[in-house]
Amino acid sequence: MLNLGLSKLAERTIDPPISWLMKLALERPKLISLAAGFTDNASLPVGASAELLRDILAEPKIARASLQYGSTAGDMELRNLTLRRLEHLDGVPRKTYSAENLLITHGSQQFLYLVTECLCDTGDIVLVEDPTYFVYLSILQSHGIEARGVKFDLDGLNLDVLESVLEKLKSEGNLARVKMLYLVSYFQNPSGVTTSSEKKQAMLEILRRFEKDAGHPIYLLEDAAYRELQFSGASVPSALITAEARKRVIYAGTYSKPFATGVRVGYGYLPDSLVQPVTRVKGNHDFGTSHLLQQLVRAALTSGKYEAHLPALRERYKHKAEIMATAIRTHFPQSVGWEAAAGGLYIWARLPGSVQTGPKSALFRACLKSDVLYVPGELCYAPDRTRRAPQNEMRLSFGSASEEKIREGIKRIGKEVSKLAPKGAN
Amino acid sequence: MLNLGLSKLAERTIDPPISWLMKLALERPKLISLAAGFTDNASLPVGASAELLRDILAEPKIARASLQYGSTAGDMELRNLTLRRLEHLDGVPRKTYSAENLLITHGSQQFLYLVTECLCDTGDIVLVEDPTYFVYLSILQSHGIEARGVKFDLDGLNLDVLESVLEKLKSEGNLARVKMLYLVSYFQNPSGVTTSSEKKQAMLEILRRFEKDAGHPIYLLEDAAYRELQFSGASVPSALITAEARKRVIYAGTYSKPFATGVRVGYGYLPDSLVQPVTRVKGNHDFGTSHLLQQLVRAALTSGKYEAHLPALRERYKHKAEIMATAIRTHFPQSVGWEAAAGGLYIWARLPGSVQTGPKSALFRACLKSDVLYVPGELCYAPDRTRRAPQNEMRLSFGSASEEKIREGIKRIGKEVSKLAPKGAN
Repeated sequence: MLNLGLSKLAERTIDPPISWLMKLALERPKLISLAAGFTDNASLPVGASAELLRDILAEPKIARASLQYGSTAGDMELRNLTLRRLEHLDGVPRKTYSAENLLITHGSQQFLYLVTECLCDTGDIVLVEDPTYFVYLSILQSHGIEARGVKFDLDGLNLDVLESVLEKLKSEGNLARVKMLYLVSYFQNPSGVTTSSEKKQAMLEILRRFEKDAGHPIYLLEDAAYRELQFSGASVPSALITAEARKRVIYAGTYSKPFATGVRVGYGYLPDSLVQPVTRVKGNHDFGTSHLLQQLVRAALTSGKYEAHLPALRERYKHKAEIMATAIRTHFPQSVGWEAAAGGLYIWARLPGSVQTGPKSALFRACLKSDVLYVPGELCYAPDRTRRAPQNEMRLSFGSASEEKIREGIKRIGKEVSKLAPKGAN
Repeated sequence: MLNLGLSKLAERTIDPPISWLMKLALERPKLISLAAGFTDNASLPVGASAELLRDILAEPKIARASLQYGSTAGDMELRNLTLRRLEHLDGVPRKTYSAENLLITHGSQQFLYLVTECLCDTGDIVLVEDPTYFVYLSILQSHGIEARGVKFDLDGLNLDVLESVLEKLKSEGNLARVKMLYLVSYFQNPSGVTTSSEKKQAMLEILRRFEKDAGHPIYLLEDAAYRELQFSGASVPSALITAEARKRVIYAGTYSKPFATGVRVGYGYLPDSLVQPVTRVKGNHDFGTSHLLQQLVRAALTSGKYEAHLPALRERYKHKAEIMATAIRTHFPQSVGWEAAAGGLYIWARLPGSVQTGPKSALFRACLKSDVLYVPGELCYAPDRTRRAPQNEMRLSFGSASEEKIREGIKRIGKEVSKLAPKGAN
C-alpha cells in the first residue's frame, strides 16, 4: 500500500540537516566535526550533579517529590528562581516578572515547538533572521509555515529591511498571516551576533506599527539559548524589560547549554494572553517536565553550584574560541570575513563569493575527503524565494571538538579554501 | 486587541478535565482525592535511584555521556534492553523485534502525541473505546480530530460494534478519514479491563478488511501504559506478536508508571513505514529524551533493580486495590456494578442509571462537600454525537491515596450514592 495514511505534517517533515551531518560524523570515526552543536564534554558538571542528586535523594520528602509527577507548568520554586535570575540578568527590580508567566519545558526547543503550534496555522508566516537557527526552520517547514528571511548585518537584523519586508507583506495583503519574528538574540546560532537592547525595542516598535493591519499582535520570539555562554562582562538585557514589551515578547531560555545538555530543562516566559494556551498544549505533550530534572536544576541554583560552574565553563569556551580564531588567522585566506566570538559556540565565516560551501560543493566534498566537517551556511537560510540566500558561508563550532581537533580541523578547511579562493583576493 | 493571533490548534485546546480536578484538590487540602492518576508515593524507588545515579556519575565516561546530548531515537542500549523485555513479556523469541523500530520518548504521553501528529490531519477520525483515557481525548480535540466511541463490554471492545461503526463510516464515505483505533489494552484507564490477545488480533483483522476502502492502512495504537502493573501471573501478549501485525500496530509503553513518574521515560514501537516520520517530528520537539533519565532507566534494567522493584510495587497496588474493593463491598449499594482490579490503578463503578455522576450532578457536589473526589465517568467518553454516553459511572483510583484515605473516601462516596440510589434496586 503506497499511501501510508500520514498526516500533512508528517509528509512535510524532512530529515533535518543536523541528523544528516551527525550521521556523516558517526560513519567516519576519524572525522573532525566542527559542525556539531554539542557542548564541551570535559566541562560537564559531573561532580556537582553527583552531589546534588545524592542530596536530593537523601531527603525522603524531596526524593519522593522528585520521583513523582509535578505540575504541567513546572515546579513553582524553580520558576521563582528562574525569574529572579532573569531579573538579575536584565537589571530590572525584583518581582518585575511574574512566575505565572513562566513555563518549564524539556529544553527550550520544546518551548519553541509549543509556541509555534499555538500561534501558527499552516500558511502563516514567521519572519526569521538571515541566517537563523536551522532546527527552528525545520519546525516551521513541518507545520507548513512560511519563513521570510530578513537581512542581517554585523550588528543583527537590518531594521530598514524588516520594515520593507513588512510593507511588502502588507501591500500583498499577507500581513494577517504574519504571527511573529523569531530572533536568536545572544551569540546567535549560527552567526555569533548579539542583538542590542535598543535594536530589540526598535524591532518591537516596528512590529507594533503593523499590528493594526495584521488584525492581531505580531509577537517577538526571543530565543536566548546562548545567553549564559557569554565570555565576559554583563549581559545585554532581554526584550522583556518594559511592561509594554512583555505583552508581545515570548522569551525562550535554557539550563541545558550552560549546565548540562543531558539535563533537558528549558523555560519560556509568555505574555499573559498566551500562558493558558501554551500550558494546555504542554499538558497534552507530556503533563510537565521530568520532576527529577527540575529538582536537579533547582538544587543547582539554590546551592550556588550553577553559578560556580559558569565561570569555568565560560573560560573554557573562551579559550577554545581563541584557539579557533588563531587557527583561522593562520590558515584561512584573508579574503574570508569573520568575527571573533564573544560568547556562544560558533564562528561564522563568509568566503569569497565564488567559493560555494553547500553539501554538493567542491569545498564540502574536499573537506569531507580530508575528514573535516562544517555546517554549510545555506542550511541556515529559510527557503524564501523572495530573496537570494548566500552560498559561500559556513558555521564553525568550537563547542565539542578538542583544542587539538579545532586547530587541525581549521587547518584542513583552510587548506581547501585556499585552493579554491581567487588568488587576487588573498 | 481581542484577536490574539492564536492558531486553530490553540483555540481548540480546552483546559483538560484532569487539571480542573487537580486544581480542586489543591484548593481543598483536606480533600480525599480518588481522582488523581498519580502513583503511590511510598513505593517510589528512592534508594534504588540514589544508588544508580551515584554509580552513573561515578564513572566518568558514563557520567559525561549522561549529561550530554544523545540521539533523537534514544540510547541504543536502552532500546535493546526495552526490546528484550518486550519480547520476554510477549513470549516471542529473542530478536523478533527490531531496535530500529523503537523510539524513546519523554513518557509514553509524548509518544501518543507524536503518533497522532504524524497520522492525523484536522477532520480525520480516530476510533476509541467507550470509555477511554481522557487525556488522549484532549490530544484529539486539540488537533480537531474526530473521536468515534466504540461500545465496550466487560472483556473490552465489542467487535460487532467495531465492525458496524466501520460499516457506517464506509457507507457515509468517511472511511478515508479513519486513521487508527486507539486501545488502552492493559488494566485500561479508566475501566480496568485487559483486552485478550485473541481480541486484539481479531480487531486487526477487522481493521484490515476496511483498508481497501480507506485507501491507506488503519493502524492499531496499543497503549500499554499499565501493563507492568499486573498484580500477578503472566502478561497477555501485546498486539505486536506476528510479523503481519507489526505492519499495523503502534505500541506505546512506559517506564514512568512502573518505576517513577518523575522519571519521564516512555517508548514506542512503530511499523517500519512510520519510524522515520515519527523520529523526525520527535527531533523537532526536543532532539531526543533527556540522556540522564535514559541512563538511569538503563542502569535500573541492567542492574536488576527495575525487576527487583516490581514485585513490591505490584504487591502494594494489589493490597490497595483490595482495600478499595472491600470498602466498596461494605459501603456501596449492591445496585452499583464494578469489578475487582487485577492490575493498574483504577476501579470503574457503574451506578444505577438514575444516579448521575457528572461535574454538575447532585452526587458530585455532595461528594465535594464531603471532601472526596472521583473522576466523573462521562469525562472518559469521546464527544461523539452518534451515540449516547452513559452519565452514571465513575473512575476510582487507588494509586496515590493512602489506605486510610481509600477506606474513608469510599465510605463517603458510598454514603452519598446510597442516598441517591433508588431504594428498590438496593
